[in-house]
Amino acid sequence: MGDSANGLINRPILASIDIAAFQHNLNRVRELAPESKIWSVIKARAYGHCFEAALKGLSSTDGFALLDIQDAAWLREHGWQGRILLLEGLFHENELSRAEDLACDLVVHCDAQVDWLERFKGKNHKPLSVFLKMNTGMNRLGFKPEVYRTVFHRLHATGYHMHHMTHFANADQVDQLPSVGGQQELFNETIAGLEGATSLANSAAILWHRNALGDWVRPGIMLYGASPTGLHADIEHANLRAVMQLHSEIIDIQDLQKGDRIGYGGRYEAPHAMRVGIVACGYADGYPRHAKDGTPVWVSSGDHGVTCPLAGRVSMDMLAIDLSNAPNAGIGSVVQLWGDKVPVDDVAQMSGTIGYELLCAVAPRVPVEIQ
Amino acid sequence: MGDSANGLINRPILASIDIAAFQHNLNRVRELAPESKIWSVIKARAYGHCFEAALKGLSSTDGFALLDIQDAAWLREHGWQGRILLLEGLFHENELSRAEDLACDLVVHCDAQVDWLERFKGKNHKPLSVFLKMNTGMNRLGFKPEVYRTVFHRLHATGYHMHHMTHFANADQVDQLPSVGGQQELFNETIAGLEGATSLANSAAILWHRNALGDWVRPGIMLYGASPTGLHADIEHANLRAVMQLHSEIIDIQDLQKGDRIGYGGRYEAPHAMRVGIVACGYADGYPRHAKDGTPVWVSSGDHGVTCPLAGRVSMDMLAIDLSNAPNAGIGSVVQLWGDKVPVDDVAQMSGTIGYELLCAVAPRVPVEIQ
Repeated sequence: MGDSANGLINRPILASIDIAAFQHNLNRVRELAPESKIWSVIKARAYGHCFEAALKGLSSTDGFALLDIQDAAWLREHGWQGRILLLEGLFHENELSRAEDLACDLVVHCDAQVDWLERFKGKNHKPLSVFLKMNTGMNRLGFKPEVYRTVFHRLHATGYHMHHMTHFANADQVDQLPSVGGQQELFNETIAGLEGATSLANSAAILWHRNALGDWVRPGIMLYGASPTGLHADIEHANLRAVMQLHSEIIDIQDLQKGDRIGYGGRYEAPHAMRVGIVACGYADGYPRHAKDGTPVWVSSGDHGVTCPLAGRVSMDMLAIDLSNAPNAGIGSVVQLWGDKVPVDDVAQMSGTIGYELLCAVAPRVPVEIQ
Repeated sequence: MGDSANGLINRPILASIDIAAFQHNLNRVRELAPESKIWSVIKARAYGHCFEAALKGLSSTDGFALLDIQDAAWLREHGWQGRILLLEGLFHENELSRAEDLACDLVVHCDAQVDWLERFKGKNHKPLSVFLKMNTGMNRLGFKPEVYRTVFHRLHATGYHMHHMTHFANADQVDQLPSVGGQQELFNETIAGLEGATSLANSAAILWHRNALGDWVRPGIMLYGASPTGLHADIEHANLRAVMQLHSEIIDIQDLQKGDRIGYGGRYEAPHAMRVGIVACGYADGYPRHAKDGTPVWVSSGDHGVTCPLAGRVSMDMLAIDLSNAPNAGIGSVVQLWGDKVPVDDVAQMSGTIGYELLCAVAPRVPVEIQ
């Protein structure tokens, strides 16, 4: 681990961000949605990958979509001159001037935000660009179809540059309600005859609902090389690359006898004598405590590497792996928790969640290296 | 939310750290272990509470125990003159001088670390204080009893100040192997006749195994007011107080008809017409995506507050709650995700995990306020 030599970082854990993989995945979005502009979604510190890496790797995007106005400010300070969409709009009226200074596009999803924009324009500010959010069945943010056109006309009459937006609840699934088709139909009926570009598709729709793209697509998880469904098999042939590689090292070895147990609760009982490697990564680093025995962990062993199964409950700072497959591994051997050798979705699957959650949860104590 | 007015923070989410609760919980440890010195365990940014708050709230501890040598440096820079224990010792030989400069106590758990210490002392450095770790059945870090005494004598002969240490696998459970009694017996037999103070007890042992305390106790989770077992009921009468309060606000309201669904996968289906509040907190803030429908969320409603059930899958930045119990709640109403009104362990229980994981996982994008 590069940084340990300088004495600043001692625990051998590191998240490496692969800029070329970012570029590759963004190019894949262009291939899949050649007629659309792209909002690259980088909320939550770019799904745990850090803004600096995202700005570097995704610089050919048409715009960045995020949540926090201070993150928009960060992008401007670091030279980003393209568009920036605030995905939940503003949270307080007093942020409007700042949003104007930063030239942000604003999602508008509730009445209070409409009131703020009307008052703001009344003070002779220039009109901002608005993505008006329609609730077509997700029932999270947005206006229901029956009031949508009224709200649209209020903002349009005030002079804002209007766009239409909705969000799919089930673009990654079949046979779940509401369906993509149903939401799309409701959206199209509601905006019939209104001017303004549209934005509908998240990663799952870009991959699997090519008739529901709209003028601006909003890829998130696919930019990071993980699956919208949480199943790696579903993107195995989509030609996406893992952007984050999470590495650590073996810091201790235990030789177990048959019947010995590992870790809290003694969940894992050795079925025979075995060598166990203790890895400097635990749930306080962002590795899921839920991970079951058998979750794959890649270990360097001599001049190659092998996958070894997790053994025992993940603790706060450590986890244990059965080294039966890696006789040459020892203290100092490099371990990959997820990345190009272990899909993050495979770890997520063994933990009852999806890659999104694991990537976002990489802890602040894990140093990030941009490659 | 105090910080939103200055325009720096827009999303209305905030983790407040209660210094008085920290002091109270540390005093409880003193009452429970009056004969022992206390290593307050503050690894993982003080279980997500931030070092600054821990230093302030736990300043009457005998020592702080943590993982990263840079965190030890931070404590020294901020005036801490008491002892500091590096719980996994050093990860690289080149950190020894720094550990000496910072006057750290070192856990020693593997042969390589013993070699480093022998070489270091041979260069006429002053002897550091060592907590030699014995593996009495946890099978994570440490020396097995059969080699422990040999290692002890090597370091003792070199001139180090020796202490004995082990860690319990099941102090929070009964009828699980290895048992506290079994581990303790093995520990005591192995160190018989050797000089040096002992350290055995984690929070669970301090609460429930008062005969297994040793000279230095190592409370972690109980300092933060959460339960070692993950069940709030188990500490309900232990007189501990929640240190972190995680708050957000309602940012949108949806009026649902019977049969409408909420969020991804449409997991929640409204059994009747209901008002739903959308809260600015999601799994990318550290709230568990696993949380089941019905997980308690406290909402201010008029001049009091009520508990409302989570409805639908937690998404990355938002969650939804059924406001049937809170007719006066609306956009801007304050919500407590966990803290004094909703035990973090209750949220964890509904998510198949323990409070530890949730506290540690509070995301860097959540601002922290020390009160």
